[in-house]
Amino acid sequence: MSPTKSLSTPFKPNTIAIVGKYFAAGIAVSLSEIAGFLKDSGYNVVFETETAQNIAAQGYETMTPEQIGQHADAAVIVGGDGTMLGIARLLAPFNVPLIGINQGRVGFMTDIPLESVMPVLYEMLAGKVEIESRALLEATVIRNGANIFSALACNDVVVSRGATAGMVELTVEVDGRFMYKQRSDGLIVATPTGSTAYALSCGGPIIEPQLEALVIAPICAHTLSDRPIVVSARSVIEVALLERPDTQAQVTCDGAVLGALVPGGRLEVRTAVERITLLHPEGHDYYKLLRSKLHWGRGSFER
Amino acid sequence: MSPTKSLSTPFKPNTIAIVGKYFAAGIAVSLSEIAGFLKDSGYNVVFETETAQNIAAQGYETMTPEQIGQHADAAVIVGGDGTMLGIARLLAPFNVPLIGINQGRVGFMTDIPLESVMPVLYEMLAGKVEIESRALLEATVIRNGANIFSALACNDVVVSRGATAGMVELTVEVDGRFMYKQRSDGLIVATPTGSTAYALSCGGPIIEPQLEALVIAPICAHTLSDRPIVVSARSVIEVALLERPDTQAQVTCDGAVLGALVPGGRLEVRTAVERITLLHPEGHDYYKLLRSKLHWGRGSFER
Amino acid sequence: MSPTKSLSTPFKPNTIAIVGKYFAAGIAVSLSEIAGFLKDSGYNVVFETETAQNIAAQGYETMTPEQIGQHADAAVIVGGDGTMLGIARLLAPFNVPLIGINQGRVGFMTDIPLESVMPVLYEMLAGKVEIESRALLEATVIRNGANIFSALACNDVVVSRGATAGMVELTVEVDGRFMYKQRSDGLIVATPTGSTAYALSCGGPIIEPQLEALVIAPICAHTLSDRPIVVSARSVIEVALLERPDTQAQVTCDGAVLGALVPGGRLEVRTAVERITLLHPEGHDYYKLLRSKLHWGRGSFER
Amino acid sequence: MSPTKSLSTPFKPNTIAIVGKYFAAGIAVSLSEIAGFLKDSGYNVVFETETAQNIAAQGYETMTPEQIGQHADAAVIVGGDGTMLGIARLLAPFNVPLIGINQGRVGFMTDIPLESVMPVLYEMLAGKVEIESRALLEATVIRNGANIFSALACNDVVVSRGATAGMVELTVEVDGRFMYKQRSDGLIVATPTGSTAYALSCGGPIIEPQLEALVIAPICAHTLSDRPIVVSARSVIEVALLERPDTQAQVTCDGAVLGALVPGGRLEVRTAVERITLLHPEGHDYYKLLRSKLHWGRGSFER
Repeated sequence: MSPTKSLSTPFKPNTIAIVGKYFAAGIAVSLSEIAGFLKDSGYNVVFETETAQNIAAQGYETMTPEQIGQHADAAVIVGGDGTMLGIARLLAPFNVPLIGINQGRVGFMTDIPLESVMPVLYEMLAGKVEIESRALLEATVIRNGANIFSALACNDVVVSRGATAGMVELTVEVDGRFMYKQRSDGLIVATPTGSTAYALSCGGPIIEPQLEALVIAPICAHTLSDRPIVVSARSVIEVALLERPDTQAQVTCDGAVLGALVPGGRLEVRTAVERITLLHPEGHDYYKLLRSKLHWGRGSFER
Repeated sequence: MSPTKSLSTPFKPNTIAIVGKYFAAGIAVSLSEIAGFLKDSGYNVVFETETAQNIAAQGYETMTPEQIGQHADAAVIVGGDGTMLGIARLLAPFNVPLIGINQGRVGFMTDIPLESVMPVLYEMLAGKVEIESRALLEATVIRNGANIFSALACNDVVVSRGATAGMVELTVEVDGRFMYKQRSDGLIVATPTGSTAYALSCGGPIIEPQLEALVIAPICAHTLSDRPIVVSARSVIEVALLERPDTQAQVTCDGAVLGALVPGGRLEVRTAVERITLLHPEGHDYYKLLRSKLHWGRGSFER
Repeated sequence: MSPTKSLSTPFKPNTIAIVGKYFAAGIAVSLSEIAGFLKDSGYNVVFETETAQNIAAQGYETMTPEQIGQHADAAVIVGGDGTMLGIARLLAPFNVPLIGINQGRVGFMTDIPLESVMPVLYEMLAGKVEIESRALLEATVIRNGANIFSALACNDVVVSRGATAGMVELTVEVDGRFMYKQRSDGLIVATPTGSTAYALSCGGPIIEPQLEALVIAPICAHTLSDRPIVVSARSVIEVALLERPDTQAQVTCDGAVLGALVPGGRLEVRTAVERITLLHPEGHDYYKLLRSKLHWGRGSFER
Repeated sequence: MSPTKSLSTPFKPNTIAIVGKYFAAGIAVSLSEIAGFLKDSGYNVVFETETAQNIAAQGYETMTPEQIGQHADAAVIVGGDGTMLGIARLLAPFNVPLIGINQGRVGFMTDIPLESVMPVLYEMLAGKVEIESRALLEATVIRNGANIFSALACNDVVVSRGATAGMVELTVEVDGRFMYKQRSDGLIVATPTGSTAYALSCGGPIIEPQLEALVIAPICAHTLSDRPIVVSARSVIEVALLERPDTQAQVTCDGAVLGALVPGGRLEVRTAVERITLLHPEGHDYYKLLRSKLHWGRGSFER
């Protein structure tokens, strides 16, 4: 498929992949029902290999994420935002449009509740769909001038102290300009998508998904004035670790470990060339999602 | 002058206006020395009318802000960020380039210390200058379909409860979409320039000056999850006041009172057509300014 | 009645006062039903004068708050926490035990929902009651050595800038020792009871009701490191206003205006001699109330 | 020595122990000078064993921390707050009065600057001293009913997720009553002493050293309303870990690893029987220390 084309022309998928969460056994019936429904609706349905094994799906072709990327016109993800994050990074090089179904409470990326999945999917696959492109981050760990590790992140790239280290001491440069030296538990670089994830726990702002911006947020900084800072999505952010007796830091992408950051090395974070495409039902409302997820207007206290 | 032209061609001012802070008597000597220096350097020096009166300046032409807007090629502002904010909004329709001199601690907009003003001005007026364009907000209070009040703001447009009212209850819409209902002391809409002012006191993030974004930050919200949200600078933000027994709210632009917001009326905030131009010495470093103003790296505590 | 005795002996009220919220017309039926129920149960029921007028109550003796203080053995308050705060301060000199009924969402002080009021009241008046004593603050504004205004507060004493003033500049002393100079929108001194009210909006901690402590919390401080500080309930806190061109500040007690604080004057806040007594149903659980009011565990976001 | 007696009678030490920071080589000259000064002043000076080795001290008796506890009348600690925390916990069972000298920027517990140490020590040892008793925490990890690990903490007891785990899911009980279930990076229980350490980085309040209180502060909670809560120092706090696929949590006391917390086990934190005694120069001012350490009044920003 040509993702760029699919964005500007009507969305008419042929092959649809189904991806379930890590331990998908509990939602086996739901996955089978969705698959049957799609098959009966005339789509070519394939299962992601591990998902098929987990639920012992019969009668469907199975594909690895890479094969899904090459062959599917859309992927239906059933699980939580964590499931979506995992598969989205794998499918990002192919930009397969993603439909997120949440089996529990609705998530930021898995915004369709499982209980209403059939009628919603029916409408969406008939073209009543809102197409949203989201930016990703690319993180690279560099040592002695060589790229050691590299990975994509939908939400965030995080440098954090090892469990037994007291803190990390970091320097941050943005586009080659020194920003600050910081003592903290770590540092988060987040996309707008990730602004409602870990960065929000660390005092970061909510950033509208379409804004071409990144947020740099310290984790439990020692200095009370080290506040989150929002920079252009075109920025290149470099993080280096200062030498200390007990220094130990690791880099994670969407929570998955990328590798260690050591004194002398550095981490580069920039907006990736790859993007992901999220499909929402018509009438999708980001602010409504925020209100629901953050309990806006419902957790107030009189005073 | 044609501000657009001045931005793309070498900066070669002829007429330079001098504007001092509100009670300028204390800096009369400094203002006179700056004026003398500029005159001796061959520039046509004019004084803003009130400033001239305050310091009893002799031998210089005086101009109102509007006349400065029409005739000056640059304005040298001596005072604090408050002085800059006041004159910047008046000169914004003319986009006269502004040079900010701080008589005390360096400010975010008045970034040249008074003690080194002569050599710095000399270099800047010789063209060694960094030109920065900053966005403004336009605030309009609407009642019964009519625009009642309207003004520009460099930093922020603020709705706040009256002194004797317990709180305000607001609704916020962005581009016609309902964002939230909020009980709080008020609401701030800030430019990136204003992100380091009142919004910062209210938990807002720092936003790089050039980012095309606004921040909406609640003031002491009753709901702990009502967090600052960063939206596109192209957004139109509408704030309406809900009816309550003791409702009372006012709108300020950069701290100056615009007028009352009443139930049934609404406040519209959008990026203004006008912009301001700040001139900085070569090598100006925003992050260095942040580090200095926020004491980054100096207020840490061991743990 | 002797409040001190009532705390150590079984709670056996004879005369019970009923107090409704400010505009009580909407809850007239509920108030009448509660009164009838108590009368039928053999208690001597009296209405607070204004409440009686608001709902045109017939056949009951009416009393001013002061008379209630002198004659009633308990007061049933129906409304929200605001209603409770208002009457609690008036009854504090008499320490009449208070029972709080909330006509809407349960409040921190009005912790009994209206829909289950009859069986709950029945059990409580039969002695199945938890008696809780809460501290109050006493605020005094002093000018030229004379006490100008004085009042009690259940929640908090607040100094805040006037609506048109940009900020206040304050000094704070605790037990005669200088704590800090502060530029902000104002300052809150709160009891543990008030720690879940305005102070919570300003970043203050939750303080268990029985802790002998006060919290001093700045409102939107200009300095990011001006954090809430918890001090002994035996502390005397003095706040003075620095002279500035636009200085204007007022003092409120539980949101009710006490008077202006002017440069040269000072505000003294200390724990009052008076206390209030709250009655709760047996099994009352403060943490459960916190979880319910603050939506703990329900507003989480995946990451 | 009898610490209780020493608190009520004049402070007249005979044997004084000197303890240097972990890598004390850099302050060898300072330590030798202090030792020489004390010896010349007639005190019996002993070195902590490791400190003596590090600086190759000659001509002084050496003692282990336990021996210091048994024999010394005071200990002079030279380093930072980390040095103080380490030795304070070892000496706590003996309650040897501690004098903290900071070789760099003054610390919260090491409040005497190295450059003025001689005259200050002279005055203090002559009795011009303020004696302050501080509470400690005792942390115990319990599995299958047995106490597995136990340790003291001056600042805080922290449960935190392992480096590769996404988060921990905890339950907290206070005095046997359920407080909340929480998803976060971890949880801090801090003394007033520790309120200006890690807990402050996590949004906790400052608590006056003498207040009989503890603060429970979540680390990067997923729920925005999970705020720090201040409870009585007589409380027993129990933390348990919920079962999750990737659960991994460890307990640290003042940053030193105590051991793992596993699902099914629990952590108990309570105020220890042991206390420590800090000696300050006369005129010691906690608020001044706060102002200095947190840069109060110096990091403000205009607005």
